[in-house]
Amino acid sequence: MNPMQMLKEAILSKGKAINQDVLLVDSFLNHQVDVSLMKAVGDAFAAHFSGQSIDRVVTIESSGIAPASFTALAMGLPLVIMKKQTSKILKGDLLQTTVRSFTKGTEYELTAKREFLPAGEKLLLIDDFLASGEAAFGVLNLAQQAGCEVTGVGIVIEKAFQPGHDRLVRAGLDVCSLARVKSMSEKGIEFVD
Amino acid sequence: MNPMQMLKEAILSKGKAINQDVLLVDSFLNHQVDVSLMKAVGDAFAAHFSGQSIDRVVTIESSGIAPASFTALAMGLPLVIMKKQTSKILKGDLLQTTVRSFTKGTEYELTAKREFLPAGEKLLLIDDFLASGEAAFGVLNLAQQAGCEVTGVGIVIEKAFQPGHDRLVRAGLDVCSLARVKSMSEKGIEFVD
Repeated sequence: MNPMQMLKEAILSKGKAINQDVLLVDSFLNHQVDVSLMKAVGDAFAAHFSGQSIDRVVTIESSGIAPASFTALAMGLPLVIMKKQTSKILKGDLLQTTVRSFTKGTEYELTAKREFLPAGEKLLLIDDFLASGEAAFGVLNLAQQAGCEVTGVGIVIEKAFQPGHDRLVRAGLDVCSLARVKSMSEKGIEFVD
Repeated sequence: MNPMQMLKEAILSKGKAINQDVLLVDSFLNHQVDVSLMKAVGDAFAAHFSGQSIDRVVTIESSGIAPASFTALAMGLPLVIMKKQTSKILKGDLLQTTVRSFTKGTEYELTAKREFLPAGEKLLLIDDFLASGEAAFGVLNLAQQAGCEVTGVGIVIEKAFQPGHDRLVRAGLDVCSLARVKSMSEKGIEFVD
C-alpha cells in the first residue's frame, strides 16, 4: 500500500472527528505514534521534494518532529525544530514571531536561533496539520527574518475546507498534503480525492 | 565509527558547557538535529534492549522525540509521547504527575492518556538527558498508575555526576546511557569512559 493510502486508512479507522473542526488522531500521530507510518510519510515527502535543491528541513514542536525526522533522514538533510515559547525573549540571537492558533484559541511565540537558519538557504517545512495556515506563515516570517526561504511545505493531514493550502500556494510554495480532508463530522470523514 | 563514539565526538566538537551543570547541545540534539546521528543512537538503543520483551517505547516531549522515533522504528514498536502540561487537567482518561526540573527551576504536569499505556506492558523510556532522574521517575509514576512497568531506560547524554543513574539502577532498571559526562566546565568536557 502506498503511504497516502496507509495514512487515509489510519485516519478512517483510528481518527475521530470530534466536530466539524477538530480531528483527533492521537492514537497514531501525535500522542501514540505509529512510527512505521511516520517513516512512510517521511519517505513520501522525500520523494516529492527531492530534486528541489532544499538545504534544510524545519518543523514546529512537538507533533511535527516524528514525520520531520524521517523526512530529513531520507533526504540526508539537517532538521531544525522551531520552539513554541509562551512569552517573548529578548536575545539577539533569537528570531521570534507570534502565532495564533484558531483551533485552540491560544497563541505562542514561534522561536528559532538565527544561527540554525543560515541566510540564503532553502527550507522545507514539515508539519502534522494544516488548517488556517497561521503556523506555516509564522515559519515563513522567521525564515524571512533569517534571510532564507521556505520553498516547500509537507503536511500530513490538511483540513482542505480551511484556507491554509490556498494561502500557501498563492505565496508561491509547493504544498504537498498527504491526506486532504474535505469535510468531517461525528458521522464520518471525507477526503478531497 | 560506532554510535557512542560519534555521539561523544559531536558533544566535544559541537557541545558547549555553559557551566558545571548546563551542557548546550542545541546544534545537533534538541534544536538543530543531526538526524543521521539520532538514527545511529536509535539503532544503538534497539541493539541494547532487543531480546528484553519490551512492548512499547515512551518518551517526553519534545527533545526525546527524534531519538525515540528511531528507536521505536528499529524495534518495530509503537511510541508514546508523554506531554508536558502547565497545569493539572481533571479528566478520567488522563494520567498525571508533577515533575520538577532542577536544572531549569520549573515544574510541569507529565501527562498521558491511560489507553496508550495498556496494563501489563513493559516500557522502554528514551530521553535526551538524565541528570537528577526526576523526569524518569515521573514516567515510572505514570506507568505504575497505568499498571505497566518501565524496565529499561535509554539516555542520549547522562550527567554522571548527578544522582539519576544510580537512582534508576537502584529501582531495578536497565539504564543504557550512550554518553556519560563525568564533569564539565567552560574548560572542557570529560566522559566517564
